[in-house]
Amino acid sequence: METIANQSIFEELIGIVGKENAFTLDEDKFKYSHDETEDYSFMPDLVVKPATPEEVSAVMKKCNEHLIPVTPRGGGTGLSGGALPTEKGVVISMERFNRIIEIDELNLQATVEPGVITETFQNAVKEKGLFYPPDPSSKGTCFLGGNLAENSGGPKAVKYGVTRDYVLNMEVVLPTGEIIWTAANVLKNSTGYNLTQLMCGSEGTLGIITKIVFKLRPYPKKDVTLLAPFTSNEEACRAIAAIFKSGVAPSGMEFVEREAIERTQKYLKEEMGENVVVDLPVNIQAHLLMELDGNDDEVLMRDAETILEVLEDFDTGEVLFADNQSRKDELWKLRRNVSPAVNAYSLTKAEDVVVPRGNLPALIVAIKEIGKKYGFNSVCYGHAGDGNLHINIMKEQLSDEYWNNEVNEGIKEIFIKVVELGGTLSGEHGIGIAKRPYMPLAMPEINLELMRGIKKVFDPNSILNPKKIF
Amino acid sequence: METIANQSIFEELIGIVGKENAFTLDEDKFKYSHDETEDYSFMPDLVVKPATPEEVSAVMKKCNEHLIPVTPRGGGTGLSGGALPTEKGVVISMERFNRIIEIDELNLQATVEPGVITETFQNAVKEKGLFYPPDPSSKGTCFLGGNLAENSGGPKAVKYGVTRDYVLNMEVVLPTGEIIWTAANVLKNSTGYNLTQLMCGSEGTLGIITKIVFKLRPYPKKDVTLLAPFTSNEEACRAIAAIFKSGVAPSGMEFVEREAIERTQKYLKEEMGENVVVDLPVNIQAHLLMELDGNDDEVLMRDAETILEVLEDFDTGEVLFADNQSRKDELWKLRRNVSPAVNAYSLTKAEDVVVPRGNLPALIVAIKEIGKKYGFNSVCYGHAGDGNLHINIMKEQLSDEYWNNEVNEGIKEIFIKVVELGGTLSGEHGIGIAKRPYMPLAMPEINLELMRGIKKVFDPNSILNPKKIF
Repeated sequence: METIANQSIFEELIGIVGKENAFTLDEDKFKYSHDETEDYSFMPDLVVKPATPEEVSAVMKKCNEHLIPVTPRGGGTGLSGGALPTEKGVVISMERFNRIIEIDELNLQATVEPGVITETFQNAVKEKGLFYPPDPSSKGTCFLGGNLAENSGGPKAVKYGVTRDYVLNMEVVLPTGEIIWTAANVLKNSTGYNLTQLMCGSEGTLGIITKIVFKLRPYPKKDVTLLAPFTSNEEACRAIAAIFKSGVAPSGMEFVEREAIERTQKYLKEEMGENVVVDLPVNIQAHLLMELDGNDDEVLMRDAETILEVLEDFDTGEVLFADNQSRKDELWKLRRNVSPAVNAYSLTKAEDVVVPRGNLPALIVAIKEIGKKYGFNSVCYGHAGDGNLHINIMKEQLSDEYWNNEVNEGIKEIFIKVVELGGTLSGEHGIGIAKRPYMPLAMPEINLELMRGIKKVFDPNSILNPKKIF
Repeated sequence: METIANQSIFEELIGIVGKENAFTLDEDKFKYSHDETEDYSFMPDLVVKPATPEEVSAVMKKCNEHLIPVTPRGGGTGLSGGALPTEKGVVISMERFNRIIEIDELNLQATVEPGVITETFQNAVKEKGLFYPPDPSSKGTCFLGGNLAENSGGPKAVKYGVTRDYVLNMEVVLPTGEIIWTAANVLKNSTGYNLTQLMCGSEGTLGIITKIVFKLRPYPKKDVTLLAPFTSNEEACRAIAAIFKSGVAPSGMEFVEREAIERTQKYLKEEMGENVVVDLPVNIQAHLLMELDGNDDEVLMRDAETILEVLEDFDTGEVLFADNQSRKDELWKLRRNVSPAVNAYSLTKAEDVVVPRGNLPALIVAIKEIGKKYGFNSVCYGHAGDGNLHINIMKEQLSDEYWNNEVNEGIKEIFIKVVELGGTLSGEHGIGIAKRPYMPLAMPEINLELMRGIKKVFDPNSILNPKKIF
């Protein structure tokens, strides 16, 4: 608590949510001071856990009146620091907004609160034969509201699109305390400006989402997984565009560097006692983990054959075809654990760049050259079917000073290359605080001015998640 | 030309684009005074036809400096009056922006200018085995830029999404004359606010689009068309949600009232000498025209059978199965000509409402009841798979006074019902001037204030397409 003046305001805020739903002690607040981004930590003055839009509204009104910074928080799995209270003030944790309000089987829609865990929601709709495709690797702990804030993707985005493609409407508390719905529960909408998709991906800077209406799809009945080994990163990345050109539409197209697999095998063994066997002959440098889904075995087999035919033109090892559930689960578990594995033994900077997928081979070559030039090791993997590559830069033996200066220069060089290749800074993690210094590389000042202008329309006093993105 | 002062500014504007690309005479400007919306007509002071973003920018700067209203115009096929110069001033016609700049087969993307006709673009990518799905009925004459401005849909939106789902990036001239790109040419993007999808559907009020980057898909190799007759409108609309619930994903799901078919048959015969036979037994009141597409005949047949099984629970006539090209073309020609046919013999007010598709049966019943109450006839059809219904209200024998007063009261009642049913005013035609008075029915003042605020960020002097939407 910063000042006596604020003290009495904080008491009022605590009154709104109830004492049992507010934290003032550092030991309780610590968890809300960090997310999964590097080693960032910022202690808020107060954490409140409202349970209704009206409580959120009351908190916002009070904070707006007294110019107290407010940072909304979901599951705390963010990779760009978007949910960190860098300016102190109040963290609004959405953890009590955890109800699935309705699964509407007639209209293939669902209404949920933003604190529902993504996987919980996926499982609930799957029980009814329905499919909510966005599946960030953190799906077991991240919140749907956070997925909306960052416009999360995941492996299935390559066929099914990102979070933005599934949200039809949302209830939002504006920084000034008003509660609005952004649109209507409809599949098509040309009625005024698109507030829904402006809100989605705005990283909690324009409003606090309190209800979400998603569209759903029928759950695909069948799937197969293929794992193709390549003799070089570049060769694997070249194959991706060729596969899409063949007309096949994989529901997963993940690139994983050799080192990522090795580290994840080690991690799964040491942390979970699990042994995921993937042959790694000495000449294999990268893998593509691919999934095909649909309702028809024959079609899947034919598409798998098309992929194999395409791969004949590339320098590959033997392609592994997984059609039994346990082997599939194992391979996808390996993929999902790359991020924790890479982060388990070293501090990392996690980049999340995206380029047109035909430019991935040039990008991967450039990243390794820049790493060599600046003396850092990088482990690369990601949703390469979308052109979305995660670059984990390892601190390991580097000094703090080198890490905070030279390495950032190298990252800047990577971003410059990405933009040269027609790409941009973030495909699904957002900008938050971690990529904020690099925004001028991605767009000119006039774009940033437009964004600041929009921010001011929603948040005239700049109290909601200030100093994020731009 | 309004004043001597403006006269010299207009001379400068003409100088920017060249005399041969500017119109000052009423006979030349007339075409730019109207679109396809009712009988609206507003004569601009000047029409200019720039050919480069720099020329658009120079025109915008000059108009912004002198507070001259500017109305951007595409193919002139709009159904809400969005491209009409209600405040006079300058019309910027985008007809010379008609180049397909690049079709990138490696990345399945294309870069085009906004004055390309939608069907021309579709055909150009189809030659390369690629697919651009949005296909408004006016695709033979409408421009891609106009499709973006209104966020157009069309029959295939039900499976493939609307224009918004295909635009990755665009070059835009802001009202102040700056030229920006809204994003990057990437499939996923969490890098700042989503200016691209804010621009899309903003009806030319935020900027003038001068280049567009679209994503494309592989062209589906096979399709079949089914025409199912129903004994009532309500029964047909009930069947729609049931079909989607079965897990089938049709690439077309159009509802057509009996009267729409009759009028279109008459129109095609009288205007084009074509005889499209559709059996219309006396008990049949509505049809669903459905398409399935994909790459596999067997899967299509199986999906068609699933649809037939679903329809067994409904009160239908005999379902027509069209798998030869000429019959398919004929049926879709019938569907595409409903709008011109309905408008050929009477002035109409064309509504474009959208509801969750499960609520279509209630909506269609309400529309007919309201029509009875207010004494107007309506012909209904549309993209019912999306819950998007076009309601054409016929003037016929009604007096001008009745048409402009009582009928508008009836329309208001329809909109109130639509919103009650979880829907909104426009699915794909936009608000323009025609639906503008009804916006407060669709959203509260705070939403409109946010939209006005956004407008002001982009267009501080309110010169670009003023008095549209809100």
